[in-house]
Amino acid sequence: MRQLHERLQVLGDVGREGEGIVRPLCSAAEHRARELLASWARDAGFSVEQDAVGNLFVRKPGCRDLPPVQTGSHLDTVKGGGRYDGAYGVVGGLCALEALAERGMETAHPVELVAWAGEEGSRFPVGCLGSSVYAGLIGVEAARALRGDDGTTFADALRGTSGLLAGVPVRERSATPSGYVELHIEQGPILERAGLRLGVVTAIAGQRRLRVVIDGEPGHAGTVPMAYRHDAFAAAAELALGVEQRARRIGDCVATVGRVVVEPNQTNVVPGRVELRFDVRSVDDGRVEAVVDELERLSRSIAGIRGVRIAVEALEERAATPMDARLRGAVGAVVERLGHPAFDVPSGAGHDAMCLAAVAPVAMIFVPSIGGVSHVGHERTAPEDLALGVEALAAAIAEIDRLV
Amino acid sequence: MRQLHERLQVLGDVGREGEGIVRPLCSAAEHRARELLASWARDAGFSVEQDAVGNLFVRKPGCRDLPPVQTGSHLDTVKGGGRYDGAYGVVGGLCALEALAERGMETAHPVELVAWAGEEGSRFPVGCLGSSVYAGLIGVEAARALRGDDGTTFADALRGTSGLLAGVPVRERSATPSGYVELHIEQGPILERAGLRLGVVTAIAGQRRLRVVIDGEPGHAGTVPMAYRHDAFAAAAELALGVEQRARRIGDCVATVGRVVVEPNQTNVVPGRVELRFDVRSVDDGRVEAVVDELERLSRSIAGIRGVRIAVEALEERAATPMDARLRGAVGAVVERLGHPAFDVPSGAGHDAMCLAAVAPVAMIFVPSIGGVSHVGHERTAPEDLALGVEALAAAIAEIDRLV
Repeated sequence: MRQLHERLQVLGDVGREGEGIVRPLCSAAEHRARELLASWARDAGFSVEQDAVGNLFVRKPGCRDLPPVQTGSHLDTVKGGGRYDGAYGVVGGLCALEALAERGMETAHPVELVAWAGEEGSRFPVGCLGSSVYAGLIGVEAARALRGDDGTTFADALRGTSGLLAGVPVRERSATPSGYVELHIEQGPILERAGLRLGVVTAIAGQRRLRVVIDGEPGHAGTVPMAYRHDAFAAAAELALGVEQRARRIGDCVATVGRVVVEPNQTNVVPGRVELRFDVRSVDDGRVEAVVDELERLSRSIAGIRGVRIAVEALEERAATPMDARLRGAVGAVVERLGHPAFDVPSGAGHDAMCLAAVAPVAMIFVPSIGGVSHVGHERTAPEDLALGVEALAAAIAEIDRLV
Repeated sequence: MRQLHERLQVLGDVGREGEGIVRPLCSAAEHRARELLASWARDAGFSVEQDAVGNLFVRKPGCRDLPPVQTGSHLDTVKGGGRYDGAYGVVGGLCALEALAERGMETAHPVELVAWAGEEGSRFPVGCLGSSVYAGLIGVEAARALRGDDGTTFADALRGTSGLLAGVPVRERSATPSGYVELHIEQGPILERAGLRLGVVTAIAGQRRLRVVIDGEPGHAGTVPMAYRHDAFAAAAELALGVEQRARRIGDCVATVGRVVVEPNQTNVVPGRVELRFDVRSVDDGRVEAVVDELERLSRSIAGIRGVRIAVEALEERAATPMDARLRGAVGAVVERLGHPAFDVPSGAGHDAMCLAAVAPVAMIFVPSIGGVSHVGHERTAPEDLALGVEALAAAIAEIDRLV
């Protein structure tokens, strides 16, 4: 377990730019991170393989010829990301495999740690790219045809010097896992505020992203009386507040206006056009639906009252992914055996477990994020919580091995 | 009067870029506009002079040795501006002088048309630059030291090929006018909505510009529950709506949020910081004060309730400029003599008359803006309204000559 912190520290310097980490898929830094994982895994005596889209598999054999129990997460980061989002689940997974091996723990199933390729959508325009391909949600050829911001296709990136690892066998076919459990930092404040060190994830939130374009009438800020205005920003403010209020009243859901673009955005001009991006999430799809319904209802009413046009366009829609009841129960039992309450927590962020859920029973374990922050260079989790999470993961793998 | 439309059309092509006009102070285009005015004025038999900061004077002599009655406006435009803002008052002023001359109308005072330099703040960071210097509100040397966006000082620009006009005498000293009357397009919708063709300006609105910076806490749009958020944009929306509502309730004032900058402005991040710019105006300074008081009160209350910091900073403050009662009465009488109601209208926008009011009695005449729009390439006023405005200006000059 000592190696957990050392390895996270080493990885935290790979792709470091200033305070944050920049490690997009198939960049030199992300390639180096995969190389490090492969070398650590081989040094620990595990076999290492990759597949055609860059997912990296570290395997501890089982006693029987069964599909593996898997754990995993990702090594890529958002631009200016932190040390733990993704990397913790990968390094922690390797440490869990080592812990099982050191304790002479034989499992019926092979146990695999997987570093999924490109969870963050950090280079190609699809998040959870490697796990989506693995779970058959995207075809291999469709994935390889994706084009990154720099114009390179994923296929070319995989063939390049920062693509597939040299000297690591490429799997032709990957087995559907018997079960999957992912360890991750919470990226939110719930565990910290509850004073707890482990969380049993109930579900990964469903999400809808919407673009709202409000067309009013630009005008001189001095010469157009209030009564004659069709102020696109005032309409936007009213819509944003209305949706916020509704989300609070519905509960167990979040609604965010993260992006606002005002035109012409000059102090002395009444805004003629505003674009808002809404992000609505809940582990209960009905609540997301209720917030979006209110957004549409409010848009119509504000458009009528203020004499503006409001167009609402769906950008993305994803249903909630509940964790498997049995695996979630197994994780809860393990957490309690370690002397902690089996505290239920939703995952507001997406994870590779979402894709695996399409083909296997899945569960997730969270550890607290200090200050609830993530996707920034100062993202932190207390070292003792990181160690406890790995302890829980190792025990959960053993438990799931017996269960599935 | 026939020349009014021709001249406006010619000027409308000087500095044309696409749909709009780009004619910043001491640019080749603005220099060309001054050259055209000087040549039209000399062709009409008037003498032409300029002063050290580029104000251009067209003079019709009076019967007695008195300080002049002046009219004027400006030839510079905002970037992408229209044909009438400023140019109408200058060309219209020249046509009014011609009309007086053609009718053999002798005035006691000399009558001067002035093309004031740089009203729009279109190149150097002070609006009403030429008229501010003329009225002694800014010293000549302070003005000449101003530096434009391109790094050039006003002094250098005046010396350059697009600076002072060649062959036009430079006045050493300018007399304080006996009275000043400015003809301008309304730039707002009031006259058009009232179905009127002439407006008698009551006052130029006072104005306060404020910068409001809201510091909340950035966070993951999926993982931070609504109850734990300190969303800077939600706070901004509440403040903007509160101020809008207050301005409507107070009446006869306008409050605008024209500029909004959200950080980090990503769909999946709760905004951590928002900057708003407020612009508040009224011809009654007490109403501006009341709106700003409410803005400050609301800021404190929203900051407390939402757990954000709100800093309010004054950027600009200008008191209202009432028109001179006698001159305004004279303009009203003239408008009625022309068969139109003497309709009172405030000026929400600033004008050179604001500066002249520091040294002389001033009045203004408005003609309607089609659709209330200005500062855009499609800014328009009906030709018959343009002609009527010049008629009113000529009569007002004659009336003011008798009055002052």
